[in-house]
Amino acid sequence: MLQLETQSQPSPMSQPTTTAILVIGGAEDKVHGKEILHTFWFRSGGTNATIAIIPSASREPVLIGERYQSIFEEMGAKYVKVLDIRDRDQGNDPYFKEYVEECTGVFMTGGDQLRLCGLLADTPLMERIRQRVQLGEISLGGTSAGSAVMGHHMIAGGSSGESPNRALVDMAMGLGIIPEIIVDQHFHNRNRMSRLLSALSTHPERLGIGIDEDTCALFERDGLMRIVGKGTVTIVDGRDMSYTNQADISATEPLSLHNLRVNILSHGDCYHLHQHQCIAKISSPVQ
Amino acid sequence: MLQLETQSQPSPMSQPTTTAILVIGGAEDKVHGKEILHTFWFRSGGTNATIAIIPSASREPVLIGERYQSIFEEMGAKYVKVLDIRDRDQGNDPYFKEYVEECTGVFMTGGDQLRLCGLLADTPLMERIRQRVQLGEISLGGTSAGSAVMGHHMIAGGSSGESPNRALVDMAMGLGIIPEIIVDQHFHNRNRMSRLLSALSTHPERLGIGIDEDTCALFERDGLMRIVGKGTVTIVDGRDMSYTNQADISATEPLSLHNLRVNILSHGDCYHLHQHQCIAKISSPVQ
Repeated sequence: MLQLETQSQPSPMSQPTTTAILVIGGAEDKVHGKEILHTFWFRSGGTNATIAIIPSASREPVLIGERYQSIFEEMGAKYVKVLDIRDRDQGNDPYFKEYVEECTGVFMTGGDQLRLCGLLADTPLMERIRQRVQLGEISLGGTSAGSAVMGHHMIAGGSSGESPNRALVDMAMGLGIIPEIIVDQHFHNRNRMSRLLSALSTHPERLGIGIDEDTCALFERDGLMRIVGKGTVTIVDGRDMSYTNQADISATEPLSLHNLRVNILSHGDCYHLHQHQCIAKISSPVQ
Repeated sequence: MLQLETQSQPSPMSQPTTTAILVIGGAEDKVHGKEILHTFWFRSGGTNATIAIIPSASREPVLIGERYQSIFEEMGAKYVKVLDIRDRDQGNDPYFKEYVEECTGVFMTGGDQLRLCGLLADTPLMERIRQRVQLGEISLGGTSAGSAVMGHHMIAGGSSGESPNRALVDMAMGLGIIPEIIVDQHFHNRNRMSRLLSALSTHPERLGIGIDEDTCALFERDGLMRIVGKGTVTIVDGRDMSYTNQADISATEPLSLHNLRVNILSHGDCYHLHQHQCIAKISSPVQ
């Protein structure tokens, strides 16, 4: 176990905000401390933030868009706009493109991750968002469906209450923001260990990230993932897996997965994506 | 990954039955192939079996006792009796004690594991059963509550749908048949990964065994555990855990558990309790 002894306190007065990618397990606090949403707001520039909300995963985009808009406005963001994309053609909308050039944070709401990817994947707008995120120019947040899309491979749906088996999970292509992870959300809340294991059985080279409700895996640009919020993040690492029967059985038969490494991380803990190593809770605040 | 290449086929005609301990995840098939119950019957001597059914976990001991009695009788067991223990004094009953001396298999039904332990733990009857099991003279089977009692530490109850935290699980003393394990049953079916992790956080030296419904972890006398049935057995090994916050947080705060080893085993797979090593599916039948 590593322990970070010292951590320089960020000073928003003297240096630009450090951008981050916030992968949120759904049902984040929107009423009381709003810790996770506040962290997104802060990482987007705080009172200088120009935030774009993409509510396209939802079937009620106006309602959900307005909800997040008022939350970030109340926190004191400079500009908050909802990009109500309901058609792929809007991925070329000059007004949206101009706003994305100016914004400092993009937030994707919950809903249906297949709908979100269907509307956004490979559009000029999404490509530009991804580029700016990867350059560290803007922060990106996603909750529930908005977090499911973060990997190259995405859990599109599935069921629960069964032993791990390939038929338990529907896979699709995600937005590839952090290609090496497969995200599952509402994790312990909705009994999704089996589904995440089933997803990993065909992609053992990826890292399974199960995020509980009101919990966030915050990815720094250097590959460090920090945990923020009330629950845990479960990291399933199958890269040293010694055996699986997945290629030899039908989709509904139970899987064997021998020799997985599993880490349960809670608030303040970190995990280094490249070194595959946990770092125990650090004392200074994440912001 | 180890692979057993050869496995001698047991021959019940020429050698005595090899006894075993069958730890069953609940809801085992009682209607069709009855694979797990058939394995218990076979390991208890088959047509030569003298079986004792202990229905004491249940609030309907007569009903559940009779159900298992007729199943084992239909399979062709020589004698099957229900030891309907409803009072600790019956742990001294000369008739029951005599029957236990003669029997070749004892089966504990589902119900409430606290009730089962309350009625049986430390009674002369249970002590004699444990002794005979450990001498390899009789087979022992338990399903659901009957399997929860197998370890030294027992999950008495708890809840689900939350991040791992100590308040999620109620621990008690089990019957200590296989002291080194902590069993949870109906595992993936009832979202119990979080509960088992919570139990292990205070007993990381024990091995967590999560057993799905209609699935059995069959323990041979040499420490080899074999999987029989339709689902998976999840083994959580915290012996190399590099960090936990469990001593530093309140019972309701989320746990950190870094560096767990997790194995998902399905039908035919084995795990060696002493070597902590998985062995992939073997070709010869378990019986």
